[in-house]
Amino acid sequence: MIIVMSPSATQNEIEQVVARVTGAGLKVHLSEGKLRTIIGLIGEKKLMAQLPLEAMPGVEKAISVTAGYKLVSREFKNEDTIVDVGGVLVGGVNLVVMAGPCAVESREQLLESANIVKAAGAQFLRGGAFKPRTSPYSFQGLEEKGLEMLAEARSLTGLKVVTEVVDIQSVPVVSAYADVLQIGARNMQNFQLLKAVGKSGMPVLLKRGMAATINEWLHAAEYIMSEGNFNVMFCERGIRTFEDYTRNTLDLSAVAALKNLSHLPVIVDPSHGTGVWKLVRPMARAAVAGGADGLMIEVHPNPAEALSDGNQSLTPENFQALMQETSAVAQAVGRRMA
Amino acid sequence: MIIVMSPSATQNEIEQVVARVTGAGLKVHLSEGKLRTIIGLIGEKKLMAQLPLEAMPGVEKAISVTAGYKLVSREFKNEDTIVDVGGVLVGGVNLVVMAGPCAVESREQLLESANIVKAAGAQFLRGGAFKPRTSPYSFQGLEEKGLEMLAEARSLTGLKVVTEVVDIQSVPVVSAYADVLQIGARNMQNFQLLKAVGKSGMPVLLKRGMAATINEWLHAAEYIMSEGNFNVMFCERGIRTFEDYTRNTLDLSAVAALKNLSHLPVIVDPSHGTGVWKLVRPMARAAVAGGADGLMIEVHPNPAEALSDGNQSLTPENFQALMQETSAVAQAVGRRMA
Amino acid sequence: MIIVMSPSATQNEIEQVVARVTGAGLKVHLSEGKLRTIIGLIGEKKLMAQLPLEAMPGVEKAISVTAGYKLVSREFKNEDTIVDVGGVLVGGVNLVVMAGPCAVESREQLLESANIVKAAGAQFLRGGAFKPRTSPYSFQGLEEKGLEMLAEARSLTGLKVVTEVVDIQSVPVVSAYADVLQIGARNMQNFQLLKAVGKSGMPVLLKRGMAATINEWLHAAEYIMSEGNFNVMFCERGIRTFEDYTRNTLDLSAVAALKNLSHLPVIVDPSHGTGVWKLVRPMARAAVAGGADGLMIEVHPNPAEALSDGNQSLTPENFQALMQETSAVAQAVGRRMA
Amino acid sequence: MIIVMSPSATQNEIEQVVARVTGAGLKVHLSEGKLRTIIGLIGEKKLMAQLPLEAMPGVEKAISVTAGYKLVSREFKNEDTIVDVGGVLVGGVNLVVMAGPCAVESREQLLESANIVKAAGAQFLRGGAFKPRTSPYSFQGLEEKGLEMLAEARSLTGLKVVTEVVDIQSVPVVSAYADVLQIGARNMQNFQLLKAVGKSGMPVLLKRGMAATINEWLHAAEYIMSEGNFNVMFCERGIRTFEDYTRNTLDLSAVAALKNLSHLPVIVDPSHGTGVWKLVRPMARAAVAGGADGLMIEVHPNPAEALSDGNQSLTPENFQALMQETSAVAQAVGRRMA
Repeated sequence: MIIVMSPSATQNEIEQVVARVTGAGLKVHLSEGKLRTIIGLIGEKKLMAQLPLEAMPGVEKAISVTAGYKLVSREFKNEDTIVDVGGVLVGGVNLVVMAGPCAVESREQLLESANIVKAAGAQFLRGGAFKPRTSPYSFQGLEEKGLEMLAEARSLTGLKVVTEVVDIQSVPVVSAYADVLQIGARNMQNFQLLKAVGKSGMPVLLKRGMAATINEWLHAAEYIMSEGNFNVMFCERGIRTFEDYTRNTLDLSAVAALKNLSHLPVIVDPSHGTGVWKLVRPMARAAVAGGADGLMIEVHPNPAEALSDGNQSLTPENFQALMQETSAVAQAVGRRMA
Repeated sequence: MIIVMSPSATQNEIEQVVARVTGAGLKVHLSEGKLRTIIGLIGEKKLMAQLPLEAMPGVEKAISVTAGYKLVSREFKNEDTIVDVGGVLVGGVNLVVMAGPCAVESREQLLESANIVKAAGAQFLRGGAFKPRTSPYSFQGLEEKGLEMLAEARSLTGLKVVTEVVDIQSVPVVSAYADVLQIGARNMQNFQLLKAVGKSGMPVLLKRGMAATINEWLHAAEYIMSEGNFNVMFCERGIRTFEDYTRNTLDLSAVAALKNLSHLPVIVDPSHGTGVWKLVRPMARAAVAGGADGLMIEVHPNPAEALSDGNQSLTPENFQALMQETSAVAQAVGRRMA
Repeated sequence: MIIVMSPSATQNEIEQVVARVTGAGLKVHLSEGKLRTIIGLIGEKKLMAQLPLEAMPGVEKAISVTAGYKLVSREFKNEDTIVDVGGVLVGGVNLVVMAGPCAVESREQLLESANIVKAAGAQFLRGGAFKPRTSPYSFQGLEEKGLEMLAEARSLTGLKVVTEVVDIQSVPVVSAYADVLQIGARNMQNFQLLKAVGKSGMPVLLKRGMAATINEWLHAAEYIMSEGNFNVMFCERGIRTFEDYTRNTLDLSAVAALKNLSHLPVIVDPSHGTGVWKLVRPMARAAVAGGADGLMIEVHPNPAEALSDGNQSLTPENFQALMQETSAVAQAVGRRMA
Repeated sequence: MIIVMSPSATQNEIEQVVARVTGAGLKVHLSEGKLRTIIGLIGEKKLMAQLPLEAMPGVEKAISVTAGYKLVSREFKNEDTIVDVGGVLVGGVNLVVMAGPCAVESREQLLESANIVKAAGAQFLRGGAFKPRTSPYSFQGLEEKGLEMLAEARSLTGLKVVTEVVDIQSVPVVSAYADVLQIGARNMQNFQLLKAVGKSGMPVLLKRGMAATINEWLHAAEYIMSEGNFNVMFCERGIRTFEDYTRNTLDLSAVAALKNLSHLPVIVDPSHGTGVWKLVRPMARAAVAGGADGLMIEVHPNPAEALSDGNQSLTPENFQALMQETSAVAQAVGRRMA
């Protein structure tokens, strides 16, 4: 932490800041410039985080220098984490693909989707049983019945199941049916839920919040890891910006940024990230070229009949084409698709 | 819902859209322009919401014309809602002020804060017992002990208590101690929690999500109201933008927008909305002049000692000045502060 | 400037940074923490600005501590600047109102508008003769003919004229007719134009860019002032955010922020700031309560007939009501409207 | 254009809208729903654009259905445009690379840079002679001397020269030395400058504005094309969002969006798009995989000595690696790098 004093700060104000900081068990390092004094804080960052120094007279601003997370960082663990989901590895040289409908709508729709994505080479089946929807009057998901269908699809195809958990109560039931618990964008800072999935020990796919900085996202993963659960995967799914041609702005630079800052794997969801099916294939290729460890793709046997997000779902044909294209790109960057 | 067909759409594609729409129980109205055909949909909006028409061949875009909410709207209820919180009315000619520390830190700090804000004229005591924090290593609140202190402060001062509820499990305990349940910004689209506070019947203060549009915010309130709970108050607390001088960008135009679209009262929180204590007084005055029904203000006996958000908390002296200034502004716009 | 070295920086890397900095004529101050070394730079900020230190090995980030502007700052000049526009003072206890149509459309429309805003108490007539428009096929303004009409309206009513200048070439002709040169949002970082209006010596109204931070805006004003022209007024007109109910998000906290950081007057334009005529009156009241030195309001004799921005223009009746309301608010905050 | 009437609109208000629209020479198509009436407008969009219908009583909103641009659109010209820059083709199967320092700093620096980028396989030399800088006290470029150096570098290496033009006055001099005129982000809506480069007939590289929507960007290109100059290339360089780890958020989905909407080639600048040299290589690969027609990359012989943007510049070694990596990706998507 660095404290920048105002040019008009008095000697007395500087001394009060120093007294406050040292009183909290930290050391200081004063640097007196031509215009102003700068105070460096040395010691435990936990202690620093609790000092509201900007409220003290004479302080212009306090700048945090060190990150507030630890377990997620490359400094803590240098080699890449590989998450083992029942034998399917996420994070190594092989790329994974998670695909399926936005929502589980019926047994037929789900099994058909599972067969399609399996045939095209995906390792995971995605599909929402509990659906967070903007309006209370929209389709909210089949809930446990949907989970049963997902489990049936798994036993028929061998695909791993990734599905969203929307509250603490349903962590046990979703854990009973799924292989990976997904935390949706709207719950990225639902800290009670993060702790609960941390305690579950299940592999977790942590989607980025719509307005979450990379720094906040890393902290959200730290919540899960601080409960002893190291099986965390990030999922970039677009951030909210002024641009309205796309549903969100897919921030692919976050993939490379996370790879620098953290050892955890990173998945990209170009379906939610763009909201426009025509943009899904090019952005899937771009994600893989940019270093993503996997893709999450919405596929529907008949997008025009989907109960949610049909506008961004791929047809089976488009999904197959996507798999072929991204496989070629994967090879070009030294990765493999199964 | 209006469907804009592409200029290159074929007659067959137009007919398929019409068949799909009428098959879903809706009527259509065709408008053939020089360049393209436009199809208007007539019928239940619930039916329309479930049609993924943009996925159909030949469709350029589908534009939603009617809102997906109902109970929160001025069309549903024209006169202003006044929420009765144990005798204190929110939403009429009288403005309310909710003030206190960001977090309950200790019995002494809270009771001192309560006395300060009571003396200056506030009707509500705010203070977090459960604190959502970006980092798992930051102070997380005193939890039920904090609630007990809030209740003691209420019995000593007569102030109503507003405090945050962060998950479904704690709705009963918070309801037992508080007068108003606050939904924090990070939980604005935690739909399970919205339903739970809806069922509780308690007055609810619904903070705006950091990246929530006004439209999504109205829908979040609709979740609460659709459970039969009409005691909902909005609280504007700033949105996330590129500007970094302030912690958030306080969107005061949302106040007037909500007053046009909805009958529910609107509170403004300039403390979180700016994150800079020097900006709190001018923005409190602005909020009242712009039509807010009340203010939520962070006040701390000694901001430089606060465990959270000290940088945006007012000293007792500044809070008194705020109350006087805003009272004058209130009169100028035909409102009253107690 | 503060340089934060990476935890893994070697002693050699630290020494190279020190050598680079001292070689550039600056002094350093080393602070060795538990985890990392921090290097404070002391000396001319101009020298610091030209060092790309983040590109050096071992450097994690370089943090700028001091502002890059000088003449616009409160440190440079503590008392408020009052800009004298031919006898009308902008920036003192009296608030000014600049009103009129978005674009000059015809002599009749302009003279009628001028009479309306004069009668309601405005001191300035606004109206675009050169119009920056998103599409090349939209109405682009009457150009010099429009300027002549503005000058005629001034001689008939005594109103001062504020109008936009869109390129260097037209600075002389606009200066010949207008009292204040307006720099539009799209040109806030058109640095050649800023220098040109700086050299003109004319009073300048500097609108905020759609995506400009407060810091960049201050620098833009510094461009004008660094040419010796101190007659600069800021105009907040909304920033671009994800919210789409309003055309822009009017950032009223920028008013108080600017008042803290700078001595220059600040005008608020709630017409462009919201884009919705129903929101103009409440936001005008809010702006005045929040400390604005004046308002810029679009008024049209018949908004439904306007050639541009009719949707955000006030009718004469609404403008009169605005003047009365804001006058009451002005009094409540110790200001006066003429 | 579609006009959505309010549910409370009267028959008289509907008739007035119809009268206004037909009076302007347009036809209408009425669609009376259960809740509200919707009025479709048929006719010239130029006429529609000038009707401020939202200002009319009873109108809830007016929705534009057709784009305001024409020449840039795929509807106008279906096959991809290939811009011929003195024999180097931009837009076909071959990808182009524009590389060099942010600013021309000296003859030695520029010639060294030119040799480096030429050797690595670039076709264009980039380098600013006129530099738009946030602060008036930052290095502003070598101006015409810089242009001379660029021309010398071209004659020595055969590279084409792309450099920024910042105002109308310097269009002739920049045109005399450069092969491509670059319009910088801050000038994307400097409409006078767009018209001037349109009239020049020179190839133009149009960078996206920091807060420009794709729609506004297309309109900016339309300004250039409407002057008869069809040699326009887009350049995505990141948009401004809340994320502060990167300097901007590189919006790669804009590449695929533009390819759908327009026939013009699209270049990507990951150097400005991220502002972090470590992210440039992965984002360059991603851009090519996502469909970009070329790259613009900042390369400096010694980034740590650069006078501007050293933090985002690549060393010669990193640039060579980038060229090899992207070449492999290009092949995987059916493109070629020279």
